[in-house]
Amino acid sequence: MKILVLNCGSSSIKFQVAEMPEYEVLAKGSIGRIGYEDSEFKYSGKGLDEKLVICPILNHEEGINLILKTLFDPTTGMNIKLEDISAIGHRVVQGGDKNSISLVIDDTVINNIEEIKDLAPLHNPNHLAGIYACRKLLPNVPQVAVFDNGFHSTLPKSTYLYGLPYEYYEKYKIRRYGFHGIAFRSMAEGVKKLLNRPFTEFKIVNMMLGSGTTANAVLYGKSMEVSTGFTPHEGLIQSTRAGDLDAAALLYLMKKESLSVDQIDDLINKKSGWKGLSGINNDMREIYNSANEGNERAKITIDTVCHRFKKYIGAYAAILEGIDLLVFSGGVGENAWYIREKVCKGLEFIGIDLDKDKNKALKGAGIISKENSKVKILVTYANEEKIIAEDTFELISK
Amino acid sequence: MKILVLNCGSSSIKFQVAEMPEYEVLAKGSIGRIGYEDSEFKYSGKGLDEKLVICPILNHEEGINLILKTLFDPTTGMNIKLEDISAIGHRVVQGGDKNSISLVIDDTVINNIEEIKDLAPLHNPNHLAGIYACRKLLPNVPQVAVFDNGFHSTLPKSTYLYGLPYEYYEKYKIRRYGFHGIAFRSMAEGVKKLLNRPFTEFKIVNMMLGSGTTANAVLYGKSMEVSTGFTPHEGLIQSTRAGDLDAAALLYLMKKESLSVDQIDDLINKKSGWKGLSGINNDMREIYNSANEGNERAKITIDTVCHRFKKYIGAYAAILEGIDLLVFSGGVGENAWYIREKVCKGLEFIGIDLDKDKNKALKGAGIISKENSKVKILVTYANEEKIIAEDTFELISK
Repeated sequence: MKILVLNCGSSSIKFQVAEMPEYEVLAKGSIGRIGYEDSEFKYSGKGLDEKLVICPILNHEEGINLILKTLFDPTTGMNIKLEDISAIGHRVVQGGDKNSISLVIDDTVINNIEEIKDLAPLHNPNHLAGIYACRKLLPNVPQVAVFDNGFHSTLPKSTYLYGLPYEYYEKYKIRRYGFHGIAFRSMAEGVKKLLNRPFTEFKIVNMMLGSGTTANAVLYGKSMEVSTGFTPHEGLIQSTRAGDLDAAALLYLMKKESLSVDQIDDLINKKSGWKGLSGINNDMREIYNSANEGNERAKITIDTVCHRFKKYIGAYAAILEGIDLLVFSGGVGENAWYIREKVCKGLEFIGIDLDKDKNKALKGAGIISKENSKVKILVTYANEEKIIAEDTFELISK
Repeated sequence: MKILVLNCGSSSIKFQVAEMPEYEVLAKGSIGRIGYEDSEFKYSGKGLDEKLVICPILNHEEGINLILKTLFDPTTGMNIKLEDISAIGHRVVQGGDKNSISLVIDDTVINNIEEIKDLAPLHNPNHLAGIYACRKLLPNVPQVAVFDNGFHSTLPKSTYLYGLPYEYYEKYKIRRYGFHGIAFRSMAEGVKKLLNRPFTEFKIVNMMLGSGTTANAVLYGKSMEVSTGFTPHEGLIQSTRAGDLDAAALLYLMKKESLSVDQIDDLINKKSGWKGLSGINNDMREIYNSANEGNERAKITIDTVCHRFKKYIGAYAAILEGIDLLVFSGGVGENAWYIREKVCKGLEFIGIDLDKDKNKALKGAGIISKENSKVKILVTYANEEKIIAEDTFELISK
């Protein structure tokens, strides 16, 4: 059974076609810069090199149309037939507190996503645009929504409440939701692969360190704490997001710079984090290279980011009352050995004992703690598309 | 040598007259509800019961005038003479990043406090009002400023930077300052008293849990992390302050409720925290009693507050790379055994092993960990007035 996986971002779409249940990727690609004259459409198929097409793609419907055309066009060599697509799986960032992890999309589900659109204004409208486009273009193909906050539906109330007046939780559902849930489920599969034991046997601190970064505490399979909050902004210092900061500092800055709510929202989400601190850009590799060349702001950026990472590992270890596994993933988590080394330094007192040589030498997934470390330190890949394809397959096969 | 200690809050003044260096309190009292027709003036002297006077006190100068008159008036029995007052020590919340822990007040110091007035708009203007009033009323008596953030001047840059664009740190000095520094210095004296060893020998996590609450990590005498930030708002869930929350949630709430910057500032500082969550008030004892009577919101308030406390203990233990002492103080830290028990639960893996019986039985200061606990758990008093008197005495005696 072939499943089309779609991840519609604010100005992008990522897609995959996978043969299930074996999860063989038959085609994949992405569209960037939607809404511009020079949108970038990349795609590749089985045995086909990646192609790049620059053309105007004005909205998500046009984008999905182009993806489908390319997949089904016999001259592109992608070799997918319309009638082969059995289902479409969508990543949906925010499911609110009503939805389960994954649901077959019907009018009720669409209404729910519509209702909470302003909880995730940068994401849910685009997911909806993708869902509507598929309904129009492939009206007979069932669709599934896989919610990125779904994995965190097990958070205890004492974890997800903020210290705000309770009525705002009741009235507007202002609470911690937590994101990167699909990635954490994929990391759980990575744990199983590396240790040959299910993640439900462990107390785990997950560090999903991509350009978006989320820390997560998992107690025997259940998410108990997560650093991203009401929105993906909160928590760790991310590639362009500020993460934790004194809300009163934000208000001070709004006054000083006469910034509107939308302007400061843009500032803390798109101009802050590694990018804003370093003044270089949002790519940790470049910041690291600059630091090695003596750039002081690059150095302090890395120190500040790692300090925050370390605080969360300690905090979540306390919440779990001890940990068994520390798991890194995401671009930085998988590749930046220097970040992992800095973050693990001195944590032997909670059983985290990094093997520096293994850590530095590792390529790809693996175990990087010392043999006798109480806590096993792992690096795994996070493959969100695979999880979406699996959930979709499972729901459609029922 | 007699020293007058003044702590001028937004609508209050607390005062003490102490004989130094022995720190014998000769007189003390407070004024509340400054600016109202029914201001409350309380005072007591050596061997004199506390008296309460209700009268209009329109501003801090009037308040200080009344305090001095009362102290020096032979008919009140306070028995202090004007010429006996050798110096005045003021608590000043925010010293910015220029000032040391304590300074003799001259025009330069006043200018510095004036310059950073808007960093602490609720506090510094009132401290200044107190300083000016004393200059006017006791022109020949030297004054000393003891800065509440001074103890945190040792924070590393990677600790005090937020993930905001670096230029806002340079332009507006938006950074973590941390508060309750005077209380932490007093807690250090408490440590010495209980263990007969100076606090510079230990890695300490301090939990100052008053109506304002601050967590603090101290490495061999140096403050390395602190939960209050740019303002006293950040960090733990406090009696009326929200503490950590997704800044984007704040912006969402501003939009939904059409709140101005000042209104939301008021909401997160005065209407949130224990009060806002519980819907009862800002008194933990009442919330605890309600919880015991089955009030669900009171229960979840305590759980939520303790969850946040515990996260900070774990985070700061990680930053210190292990801890030797966990020290509680403040009204809740000193008295709420149930909070201490909840917060310490399950932290044996980092060496924190509470003796539940000792904890429950303790009245006042003492050691509440088990004999063989790697981390000693202490309860100490925080006497900020004593520290201010000591600093003032020392600077004036030079």
